[in-house]
Amino acid sequence: MADVFPQVAEDFAVDALTGDGLRLRLKVAEKHLRPGGTVSGPSIFALADCAMYLAVLSRIGPVPLAVTTNCSIDFLRKPTAGRDLLCELRLLKLGRRLAVGDALIFSDGTAAPVARATATYSIPPDRPSPTC
Amino acid sequence: MADVFPQVAEDFAVDALTGDGLRLRLKVAEKHLRPGGTVSGPSIFALADCAMYLAVLSRIGPVPLAVTTNCSIDFLRKPTAGRDLLCELRLLKLGRRLAVGDALIFSDGTAAPVARATATYSIPPDRPSPTC
Amino acid sequence: MADVFPQVAEDFAVDALTGDGLRLRLKVAEKHLRPGGTVSGPSIFALADCAMYLAVLSRIGPVPLAVTTNCSIDFLRKPTAGRDLLCELRLLKLGRRLAVGDALIFSDGTAAPVARATATYSIPPDRPSPTC
Amino acid sequence: MADVFPQVAEDFAVDALTGDGLRLRLKVAEKHLRPGGTVSGPSIFALADCAMYLAVLSRIGPVPLAVTTNCSIDFLRKPTAGRDLLCELRLLKLGRRLAVGDALIFSDGTAAPVARATATYSIPPDRPSPTC
Repeated sequence: MADVFPQVAEDFAVDALTGDGLRLRLKVAEKHLRPGGTVSGPSIFALADCAMYLAVLSRIGPVPLAVTTNCSIDFLRKPTAGRDLLCELRLLKLGRRLAVGDALIFSDGTAAPVARATATYSIPPDRPSPTC
Repeated sequence: MADVFPQVAEDFAVDALTGDGLRLRLKVAEKHLRPGGTVSGPSIFALADCAMYLAVLSRIGPVPLAVTTNCSIDFLRKPTAGRDLLCELRLLKLGRRLAVGDALIFSDGTAAPVARATATYSIPPDRPSPTC
Repeated sequence: MADVFPQVAEDFAVDALTGDGLRLRLKVAEKHLRPGGTVSGPSIFALADCAMYLAVLSRIGPVPLAVTTNCSIDFLRKPTAGRDLLCELRLLKLGRRLAVGDALIFSDGTAAPVARATATYSIPPDRPSPTC
Repeated sequence: MADVFPQVAEDFAVDALTGDGLRLRLKVAEKHLRPGGTVSGPSIFALADCAMYLAVLSRIGPVPLAVTTNCSIDFLRKPTAGRDLLCELRLLKLGRRLAVGDALIFSDGTAAPVARATATYSIPPDRPSPTC
């Protein structure tokens, strides 16, 4: 993270690696907020995108040219003020050329999700074939 | 913008209002970049989201509770290094309850889009009915 | 189903109601197939859309004007030939105005999903407020 | 179309090839309708998906393994009863591995779109490189 996303690496922490993905924390700070204390949409996008990136690279190793090709987010509820956000990322497919993951995003300590997202990653050719 | 997005308002400039939307500029700076000079995904998301917000509010006036409910982005090409990004936002629907807009995002001076996005806004009830 | 979708009602069967959604079966027949035995994309779309419709209406009752406003599908793997498709639909939000659900779609008897989808429903105003 | 989509080929007609895509017509018939005369969501999905397929293959030739990987649709307005639907498909990217297209869908004779869609196609490797 420090190499690839130097401006934002310290905003995130991996809380857990899971069987099919990981849980990533956004350490919410002033710069992530909108007036009223809501975490901004771009900050939630960044959390989902970063979780997807880390989940893919945790399985296939560092691949500099892997890129997000699509991300679709639904914003469901206002985040709880003063809480970190947690992203539960689950890889649904990890193919040779494309990876797809689903993310649910929660305010820390709250059961109802504040957002959901799906991200697609394109993986460069000429790599060994992972299975998922 | 200064009221609602104080942390990012100075990153953006409205280049033009158009018949069905507007053109918004992201004044690309160091904080928007990934290693290699590419504009980050969250910065492109923020540009599309902000363009949608401004296009809706330019038609219905300031509505504090209007919120993005969905945003889907396709990343098509690597942005040109050292160039601002321009977002051409077109409102496809501006109803009483939902607004939907399409965005094409270009590196300034380049014809092939670097991304496209669609955003949906939810508009609070009890407002006069716009037409579109 | 017979009232609202008379042309397709007999293609579907509710296998189970779950705590946060339901499981819907597409009884795959010749008309759903592409050459090679793959279930067509529109048939998979119809399964997800119908599951969302039934999940929402199972909670709020028959609401004639509830409509899908967005559906996003990722096609992950080729369906298994000669098998029904099962859609696990989970409601993520059931608000007064919008409902959002996630769907995972499987070939019957297979663990890896063939598709995932998210659907948003718009619910007409002037209804009692459900909670979810 | 007759080879690949034998069950539905006669439902569609290419009205025009355009510089960056094509215009496809859905010849609306009883089987495409919901009660009230609205064209069904799956029929609109099929129109967008088919337009994308034809636009890609009109540029790269018949590629049996090209598949839709993602399709996102926004339903904007009720289609006009008794009218065909027209899909204006524009290719935004036609790369070696992925193609992305935007679709606007209209009731014939009406200016406001009834739906918009974006589709992504995955193109098998080992093919000559098109440019777009």
